[in-house]
Amino acid sequence: MIALPQQITAAIESLAKLPGIGPKTASRLVYHLIKKPASDVESLGRSLMLLKKDLCFCEQCFQITDHHICSICSNTKRQQKQIMVVEEPLDVMAFERMKEYDGVYHVLHGILKPMDGIGPEMLKITELVQRVKTLSQEASVEVILSISPSLEGESTASYIAQLLRFLPHVQVMRIGVGIPIGSSVEYADEITLSQAFHGRRVLSQS
Amino acid sequence: MIALPQQITAAIESLAKLPGIGPKTASRLVYHLIKKPASDVESLGRSLMLLKKDLCFCEQCFQITDHHICSICSNTKRQQKQIMVVEEPLDVMAFERMKEYDGVYHVLHGILKPMDGIGPEMLKITELVQRVKTLSQEASVEVILSISPSLEGESTASYIAQLLRFLPHVQVMRIGVGIPIGSSVEYADEITLSQAFHGRRVLSQS
Repeated sequence: MIALPQQITAAIESLAKLPGIGPKTASRLVYHLIKKPASDVESLGRSLMLLKKDLCFCEQCFQITDHHICSICSNTKRQQKQIMVVEEPLDVMAFERMKEYDGVYHVLHGILKPMDGIGPEMLKITELVQRVKTLSQEASVEVILSISPSLEGESTASYIAQLLRFLPHVQVMRIGVGIPIGSSVEYADEITLSQAFHGRRVLSQS
Repeated sequence: MIALPQQITAAIESLAKLPGIGPKTASRLVYHLIKKPASDVESLGRSLMLLKKDLCFCEQCFQITDHHICSICSNTKRQQKQIMVVEEPLDVMAFERMKEYDGVYHVLHGILKPMDGIGPEMLKITELVQRVKTLSQEASVEVILSISPSLEGESTASYIAQLLRFLPHVQVMRIGVGIPIGSSVEYADEITLSQAFHGRRVLSQS
């Protein structure tokens, strides 16, 4: 192999560390960037350099934010007694795109994975229980467990439900599981079908 | 939509401008980076900021380099009379990975695309003809047109062959076209099959 200029190798190596980007894609991206005006490339570099500056977790919901309390938790128009529990910060964005939810969130930052050594103490579960406990002293609280319905997701949801069971005035909900819109029954796996069957709703009744 | 911290939005927008990376992938990459140590993220940012610094075209072959003459052209062990003509800088890397070629290159920086307004004057064609002309005054020169065998690639190759035709001591070659190794005849399109048929070689003869 010929020796590439050092700055090209460095950029390829850095980009190739990103998930889903291998050395070939990284090379393509770098040569794409080389063709762009220097100001564009520098602004990309600068935006990444500054990315983590002043970022922190929201003290209430553990969303990533640049304030002590994030813009959702500090929004007085949102229901503070309706807490949607999600795995990752990006899940919050997904639900916000839905534009229907006006409660708040709680980001776990992962799910229980005993095989990978990820136990409850590595997630924001204690903080959730504490938060719900404090809130439920005043009025009833709805906790919606919007964790992905995988095997590990289900056991995380059960674990949390178990912890919250003995708190008074707390309703623990699980997000609906079934066949996604646009998909077809034919292609659904048996477990999804079984869950969809058990989660059936009344459409009309005479 | 909730307002994301400004540094997150900036990073997502910058990454989403890269080819093959949409807003969703950009978000995933950014949240992946946020979880990484600050030093890793800063080093990625810095490597991109410095990417274009001191880069230039090799004055002989127009490869991207940080010297006036690139490491291939300045390597005295390589055949300076064998010139492989490629479309893009990354094509040089592809041939170098082959580890069999010991000639030099000439990077066109594109191919003729009359529909997109890309004419010969926007490519390094005049420079190629001049380079071959100078070289061929001393000894015979082999020019290998390793341009991709698309419709536009073929017409670019013909155009260059036409220009070089009247120079003495110049042999113009076209890279082999056919069925790629590991692929199967069944899936090859007719044009590739036709080219493979016309490009057949003698394996043994009695």
